[in-house]
Formats: sequence, structure tokens, C-alpha cells
Amino acid sequence: MDIWRSNNMPIDGEFKLIERIKRWVGPPSSRVFLGIGDDAAVALPPAEKLLTTIDMLVEGVHFDFSYMTPRELGHKALAVNLSDIAAMGGEPWYALVSLGLNDSLGETSVEAFYAGMLALAQKYGVEIIGGNLVRSPDRVIVDISIIGQSKGRVLSRQGANPGDVVAVTGYPGASAAGLAILKKLGRNGIASLPTLGQAHLMPEPRVREGQALAQLAGVTALIDISDGIANEANHLASSSEVRVQLDREKFRFSSETQQAASQMGKDPLDWALRGGEDYELLVTLVPATAGQAEAALKKLGTPLTVVGQVSADGSGVVLKAGNGEVSLLPPGGWDHFPNEPVRK
Amino acid sequence: MDIWRSNNMPIDGEFKLIERIKRWVGPPSSRVFLGIGDDAAVALPPAEKLLTTIDMLVEGVHFDFSYMTPRELGHKALAVNLSDIAAMGGEPWYALVSLGLNDSLGETSVEAFYAGMLALAQKYGVEIIGGNLVRSPDRVIVDISIIGQSKGRVLSRQGANPGDVVAVTGYPGASAAGLAILKKLGRNGIASLPTLGQAHLMPEPRVREGQALAQLAGVTALIDISDGIANEANHLASSSEVRVQLDREKFRFSSETQQAASQMGKDPLDWALRGGEDYELLVTLVPATAGQAEAALKKLGTPLTVVGQVSADGSGVVLKAGNGEVSLLPPGGWDHFPNEPVRK
Repeated sequence: MDIWRSNNMPIDGEFKLIERIKRWVGPPSSRVFLGIGDDAAVALPPAEKLLTTIDMLVEGVHFDFSYMTPRELGHKALAVNLSDIAAMGGEPWYALVSLGLNDSLGETSVEAFYAGMLALAQKYGVEIIGGNLVRSPDRVIVDISIIGQSKGRVLSRQGANPGDVVAVTGYPGASAAGLAILKKLGRNGIASLPTLGQAHLMPEPRVREGQALAQLAGVTALIDISDGIANEANHLASSSEVRVQLDREKFRFSSETQQAASQMGKDPLDWALRGGEDYELLVTLVPATAGQAEAALKKLGTPLTVVGQVSADGSGVVLKAGNGEVSLLPPGGWDHFPNEPVRK
Repeated sequence: MDIWRSNNMPIDGEFKLIERIKRWVGPPSSRVFLGIGDDAAVALPPAEKLLTTIDMLVEGVHFDFSYMTPRELGHKALAVNLSDIAAMGGEPWYALVSLGLNDSLGETSVEAFYAGMLALAQKYGVEIIGGNLVRSPDRVIVDISIIGQSKGRVLSRQGANPGDVVAVTGYPGASAAGLAILKKLGRNGIASLPTLGQAHLMPEPRVREGQALAQLAGVTALIDISDGIANEANHLASSSEVRVQLDREKFRFSSETQQAASQMGKDPLDWALRGGEDYELLVTLVPATAGQAEAALKKLGTPLTVVGQVSADGSGVVLKAGNGEVSLLPPGGWDHFPNEPVRK
């Protein structure tokens, strides 16, 4: 089933399509002086520090139309980028959308793609102010860039200190669990595990959570776990020049993730550590702030779980088992150019 | 000959490559608080109006390694985007670089690609502050986003008034002439026509020219002609709600473009109107400012040629022949999703 390409009017010209995109996006707000349709967009600059990020999704590498609709792709492509702004504790303002489309793609699908983006953009006050359409003969390509601003403090990967605790938002592993189910059982298989489908196909970026954490003086470093906790905790450890210890027993998983894991004979922790595509946040903070951070995120409906601590003795990441044994947790999981591919 | 993929060390991991890119790019300036390597870049926001643009190049659609080196691709991919900032009369500040790379690509080529970008970036005071690496199994993809600011006035496509004259920078048609020679005769064929090779492979964005034009009160609208003059003059006419008349006799071509045209039995005006990929500027201005504009650009070493005028009688673009006959010039040339493909 190729949802994107079926029952679709063909696209009859780049410039007509740009006119339609302008209509779908609607009139710009008062902070945008010139939106879609000129050589460049013209907008009010942020007053605080400028934050910016870019992220590309390639058909067959990052998504597959056999189990993902265009609307879901629109949502997810924007969510992936919003997550990077969230991971700085920032506020997203503007988005630019670069699309590489096949000849066979239809307008209905492009409209659904935009609808998915626009619904999420509206939720977080982001405006699509520009973009670019090109022909990509083999694979659909989506590349989105976001411009935003800091909300008070910027939370980078560099601030973790020995003595901090490490915590994670939400229930990691759900996205990889959803992908495993989708690959094995397709859309029908995921219907009985809706939160896993949601986690993989329409993840919620933790924008408000990132901003809430940036308000707390005891929060020291923040990163999103889009490439899996094994990779991201190693990034954080190396940027902050500390050791991160994660405690296997402390991780919590959603009941659907546990159900999927037992169905498939998997350890949900493997999905969390190496699966990737959870758009949750990994945060370090002084122990005294943990309760306050948990309460702040609870108000947003998001759990925060302490899963480890930061120490000065050594570098990298270690995983502590239930019996107290500690083993090295090397980077691994989602790497776009792995030596030994973990995943195609 | 596949320049990119030959004699190359394989890429041994996304994160190692990011470390190398950080080294090639060098330490950030004082206006960049966090460059490559965190979830998002953190930088000083522009003080004037923010300008931003994004543009994607796809292997086999926009470039071909059979006649283009990685260094040239790096230069051109950035130039294409700088041209969009130039077409607003703006000043580019920051660039984000999204790369989709094949398994078979080597580090030497990626380094050369960055060297091409960095040389051009330095010339115009642009800093590469972030990016993204993904696997793109079939085709190399380059998507660059630029953030900049206005320099005084923003020049859009919308300001042209009846009575204005229309002028173009440089010698259009050179890029399409270069491509035609490259396709027919390869790199050896272009050696005797170096300015055509340069125009197609390493075009110079008219950043300083755009800024100089923005300083002149009599300049009313500006657009770059990357999709060919036929398309771009129609965009300008429709955005400004005027008619644009171009005078066939007034166009000037470089001697190499004329030489290539006579070799290949082509009309150089067709290359200028429909070929695309000239990163020249098309500008409208009150007639009294034409001399001043020409003098300002001459200081930058760039010719400015009046090639037509703006009128209120009708819409769209017309082309006036030597015998005074006037015919409609519809959009046409480089369209990424054409009804009738002008070019693959």
C-alpha cells in the first residue's frame, strides 16, 4: 500500500503548487513581513538568543509510506525539529520546509503533509514562512529548518556536574516498540497499541517541558534522545566531561511498550537505549531540584523519572544492573553511517 | 568518472564525521554562542529584519558528479542560497547545512565539499553554525538554509511601478551555455571557455550588488534569475501587478556565451530566458536612478544593463523583437514539476 501516491491528482507545476501551499498555510502573522513566495522570507528577529536547527528525513531511511501517511509524515518531520529546539529549552518561531517530491506524487498527499505540519505548528506557535520544492526522482525528501529563541537560559549538553542526577521525560522505548510492531504487523497490528503508533508516527515534541526545565536553576544540561539513550547519554557525558551512570532498574516503560516487548521477546530497555526516535528529553539536575522538576512537568502531563547520576570518576556511560554490576554502555543505536549497522 | 566516490576513505560513523566537520569549519565567532554539535545552534539574533531562505539540490537533477567536483558543489550549493539573500538586498549571517550522503561517499570528498562552501562563506562573512548528516541511499542531497538580515530597505518582488526600467546584472545565459558545453564536451570542452564553466559550476552570488541596490531609493523591486528570466520576470510582473516588457536587442552576452551559441547553433537569448541557474539579479528602478545604479555596480566590477521597462497596460511579460513586434513571453524554463519538461 502506497498511501502517498494513490488516488491523487498529479502536481501540475512548481509555481501552482507554491500558490496552493500559500493558501494552506494562510496569511502570515504580524511578525512576518513577507512569507512564502519571495526569494527569502522577511520576519521580526528574535529578541533573545537565536536558536536554529535543521533535520532531513529520507524515504526508506527515516520513514516508509507502507505504514506512514503523508499527514503523519508532516507532523513527524516538524516534531523532529521542534524537539531540537525543546532540547535547548527554547521557543520555536519560524519554520522553512524543503521538499523533494517524485513525479508521481499527488497534490492531495502534499496537502495532507502540510495539514500534519500545520496542526502541530499551530499548537506550538510556529509559522511556516518559506520553503522550497524540488524534484527528487527516487525518494521523497523532507528537510525542515527551525528558527526560534531562548527562553531565559539556554540548556546545552555541556553543563552536567558530578553529583547531578539524570532523568528522562515520558516513557522511552515506545517509538522503537511502535516501529517493531508496524514492521511486523502493519497498521492493523498497531491499532490495539495506539500509544506506540502515536510515539512512532506522530511523536509529541517536549517543547513546553524543555521550557519549564530551563526555568529551574538546578537544571544543568539537556538533550533529546532522538538517536537513542545510549548515543545521547554518551554525547552528554563527553560534552560535559563527566561520567553518566544509568540504573537499569529505574527505567519505566509504558504498559503498551511492555506488552509489545513480551509479545516480541524483547527487552524494552534495548528499545530505549538503542532504538532511537523517542522525542523525549534527557536532563541532568542537582538532586535538590528533582522534586521541583517532576512537579513542573507533571503539570504538563509528562512524567519525569530519575534514571541515574553523574560522577567525576571516569568518562562515558555505564549501565548498572539489578545485581549492582556495572558495564560500559558505548554509543550505539541510530547512527546514520554505522560501522556495523544496527539498523538499516 | 565519478569524482566524488573515487580515491576516498570511507566514512566511519556519523559522529566522527561531525567532529571532523567541526574542525574544518573552525571555532565560531563571538556572535555564535554554540555552533556545530548541540541539538540546535545558539547565536546573536540579527538587529534588523530577519531574512531566511532554504534551497535543496538533488544529485542527477541539479548537479552531476560526472562534470562537477565536490568542491564546486559546496561552492554552488551555498551560492544558490546566498543569491536568495542577495535578491532581497540583504546580508547573510549564518548557514545550516543538511547533507544526505551515500554509503560509498568518502571523507576526502566531504572535506572538499566543505572547503568549497567555506571559501565562499568566508568571502561574504557567513558562518556555518549547524547542520545535519543523514544517509541518502540513491542520490546525494544538499539542503542549505541561510539566516541573514536586511540592510536598510528590503527589496522584494512587489515594488515595480509603471514607468520603471528593468535591468539585469552581469551577462545572463552563461550558466546554461556552460551546462550545454559540459554536457556535450565534458570538463575538457569547458577548459577553453572558463567563464562559462565558472558561471555554471561556481557562480558568484550578487550579494554586494544586492546590498548596493538596496541603498538607492529609486530601486523598486529585485529578484534573482535562478529559474531563468522568463520565469522570474513573470514572477516580478505578477507580484507587482504590472507588465514587464523586455527588449530583445538590449540584452548583452559575454563573448564566450556568444562563441558557445554559435558553436552549438543556439540563440544565447534562449539560454538567458529559459536556461536558468544564472545567479544574476533582475531589478526595476526609476529611470533617473539607472545611471547611479550602473555606477554603483561598476565599482563592484559588475555590469548592469537596462533590458526593458515596466508598464501598466496589461500584465505578464512581453518580448519586443528588433522589428518592433511584441510577443507574449510566458513563464518557462526551469520548473521543478513542469507540464512539458523543458529540461530533465
